[in-house]
Amino acid sequence: MVRAEIIAIGSELVLGGVADTNSLYLAEELLKLGIEVRYKTVVGDDPKDIEAALQHALGRADVVITTGGLGPTEDDLTRKVVARVTGRRLVLHDETLQRITQQLEARHRRATAEQTTQALIPRGAKVIPNPVGTAPGFFLCFKDEGKAERALMCLPGVAMEVQHIFPEGGSVLLEALVGTAARGMLLRHRLRTFGLVESEVDARLRDLYTAERNAILGLQAGVYGVDISLTVRGRDPDSAEAVMRRMERAVRDRVWDYLYAAGDQTMEGVVALKLKAKGLTVAVAESCTGGLISQRLTSVPGSSAYFDRAVVAYSDRAKVDLLKVPEALIRAKGAVSGEVAQAMAEGVREKSGADLGLAVTGIAGPTGGTKEKPVGLVYLALADKRKAAVRSHLFSGDRDGIRCRASQAALDLLRRYLSGKAIE
Amino acid sequence: MVRAEIIAIGSELVLGGVADTNSLYLAEELLKLGIEVRYKTVVGDDPKDIEAALQHALGRADVVITTGGLGPTEDDLTRKVVARVTGRRLVLHDETLQRITQQLEARHRRATAEQTTQALIPRGAKVIPNPVGTAPGFFLCFKDEGKAERALMCLPGVAMEVQHIFPEGGSVLLEALVGTAARGMLLRHRLRTFGLVESEVDARLRDLYTAERNAILGLQAGVYGVDISLTVRGRDPDSAEAVMRRMERAVRDRVWDYLYAAGDQTMEGVVALKLKAKGLTVAVAESCTGGLISQRLTSVPGSSAYFDRAVVAYSDRAKVDLLKVPEALIRAKGAVSGEVAQAMAEGVREKSGADLGLAVTGIAGPTGGTKEKPVGLVYLALADKRKAAVRSHLFSGDRDGIRCRASQAALDLLRRYLSGKAIE
Repeated sequence: MVRAEIIAIGSELVLGGVADTNSLYLAEELLKLGIEVRYKTVVGDDPKDIEAALQHALGRADVVITTGGLGPTEDDLTRKVVARVTGRRLVLHDETLQRITQQLEARHRRATAEQTTQALIPRGAKVIPNPVGTAPGFFLCFKDEGKAERALMCLPGVAMEVQHIFPEGGSVLLEALVGTAARGMLLRHRLRTFGLVESEVDARLRDLYTAERNAILGLQAGVYGVDISLTVRGRDPDSAEAVMRRMERAVRDRVWDYLYAAGDQTMEGVVALKLKAKGLTVAVAESCTGGLISQRLTSVPGSSAYFDRAVVAYSDRAKVDLLKVPEALIRAKGAVSGEVAQAMAEGVREKSGADLGLAVTGIAGPTGGTKEKPVGLVYLALADKRKAAVRSHLFSGDRDGIRCRASQAALDLLRRYLSGKAIE
Repeated sequence: MVRAEIIAIGSELVLGGVADTNSLYLAEELLKLGIEVRYKTVVGDDPKDIEAALQHALGRADVVITTGGLGPTEDDLTRKVVARVTGRRLVLHDETLQRITQQLEARHRRATAEQTTQALIPRGAKVIPNPVGTAPGFFLCFKDEGKAERALMCLPGVAMEVQHIFPEGGSVLLEALVGTAARGMLLRHRLRTFGLVESEVDARLRDLYTAERNAILGLQAGVYGVDISLTVRGRDPDSAEAVMRRMERAVRDRVWDYLYAAGDQTMEGVVALKLKAKGLTVAVAESCTGGLISQRLTSVPGSSAYFDRAVVAYSDRAKVDLLKVPEALIRAKGAVSGEVAQAMAEGVREKSGADLGLAVTGIAGPTGGTKEKPVGLVYLALADKRKAAVRSHLFSGDRDGIRCRASQAALDLLRRYLSGKAIE
């Protein structure tokens, strides 16, 4: 497989607290071409650092892609360093210069010397046009004596520009280089679980880590649960797919109904599909989650088919006004209680005429907790026309984490109901 | 300044679509100690790749920190490679072995050979205990002949473990190494704008990129606007602070009232402070944003002081039922119109008794757009007891982007109102 290295250039990426996300995008795109990213490097805007990183990368990878450092400011040094490292002069690319001049004229300005440097391209490089920004990218194939041919592609650093010009002009250049033979040999899949902590998933999958030579199993834990990523390398598509099928089956056997989605699916996406398939509608009553469940349910295109309304009843008065929760019940049991959660779910269902009512009440913190009702205590309720299911959870984490986990647990309760589990 | 390199180890980080976030956290923490991250490298679980990356890093940085590759699976190779590169034998660390055995006994299991490898530490290394996971980290100072002293710290890859054990046990070891003299020489600040696109901010700041030798200016555009990051290196704290003050003043002069927050502040955090300072309460009526505005306003601790309720009125019926929007108005103007936005804002304000009513109605897409009312068209309204302000926007992006931008614009309307701008 063709080996690639991605070099992200920019002081803000090493010191400025800004994450390099271009390499994630590019690694995905390169995989589709059958090119495997083996290394990623991040360096600041220091010409010596860039030069060293470039030299090192060209020594170990077949394809090197840089992002950043092509703009007009003094910090943008990539083109000069590339010229030095590859031993090529920079030449003025007429079309690019023309385009830069026209862009500036449209704003009634003249091109400065700095701006024209963006039209400088190493001799022999192919220009990758950048209609959404100023600096174009470029691509260079070269061969030093006694060494294999290598390719270098330089792209701008702005994510929006990379994601525009790579598929438009960058991808095809690499495709020509690697041919189509290498494709389809790397497969990726993701299985998403909720309800188990990372160490529990890890324990369930332990023996699978080394079960297949060409498979990589990775876990990523977050507030929405633990995602399991499966990556399979294969000599040919058929064998890779066979390994993937075996792996997926083995993982599914071990995580069972904690698995709520696969691939890019989300919990709300899965719930939306199930609601639509059953022709059911839902109304939501939220307290501590403050609109998060509603926001997630309506993030799915076409959500008006199954979503009617939500009420964020933050105050006791709002719970009484909007959801007809009896005042006496709030006084007797407290606003954070299973009984109030149930009354909220039933109230929102009745008032809206929806098939299902989903409600959450809890203490997201950081203050408001007591010994009996600590921060993180959350009650969920789901009501249909016959009865209601009530669940309690004690979530850890900060306010944001507790709210996210509570919204995920509420949607998971709905998912399990829609999967045919009876309410009890 | 002491130079550091961070090596993130894990095939999932190069191929699995998982971002390396540990390095962002560590770069922040190292800055506090006066250690500057100069390079970041990501490699897969290949011993040769890890060895090469480690050799290279030790050749160019004073401090090298690795994350990942310390667990019990065969993929976890870091300790072996470190032993080879530093020329030290691995020795069994009794306390760690004891802890691993105890942890397993609590689960009625015996330690396997693989699990005991986690207690192997290069001779002479200091152990960094890991109470929240299994594999401890370790720290090694060494000096090859004719070279300066270098330090190597190996940490686990799980983010939660890194963020627990680094401040508990890792930080102090590096502090002893670099002393306290280097501190305070690197300052970071962030200014956040909304309402200008990246190229507009860029054009306003262009001459500042090179105005100060020791300052780095970076832009990061997202759905919530364009953030400007300022990083200043200085020989001493006083001069660094002076440069930072100059830079910040210059940036503020140029972005003016588009600037909505500084540092870690969010739009909702700023709005919350202003509402509390004025003793005002707000109620929200949402359509296309589906609860997002409410969720953001209640994400701030103590939000019950200024937030009473929100209504997500997705259907026309819900707008009539819950917000008393006249049915005839919806028929005449359409649910997505300035008139309906205003009626929603006034309706939620009146029904809740809050001081302010904030409403959004629009077309988030991907379907539902027409020639007159395209996807991305959003109406906002803010009502106080005297009058209402109505705004229209045409946002670009996908459904999620349009919803985020709409929520930000709504909160920005509220921010500008609370900053004393009159409603008109």
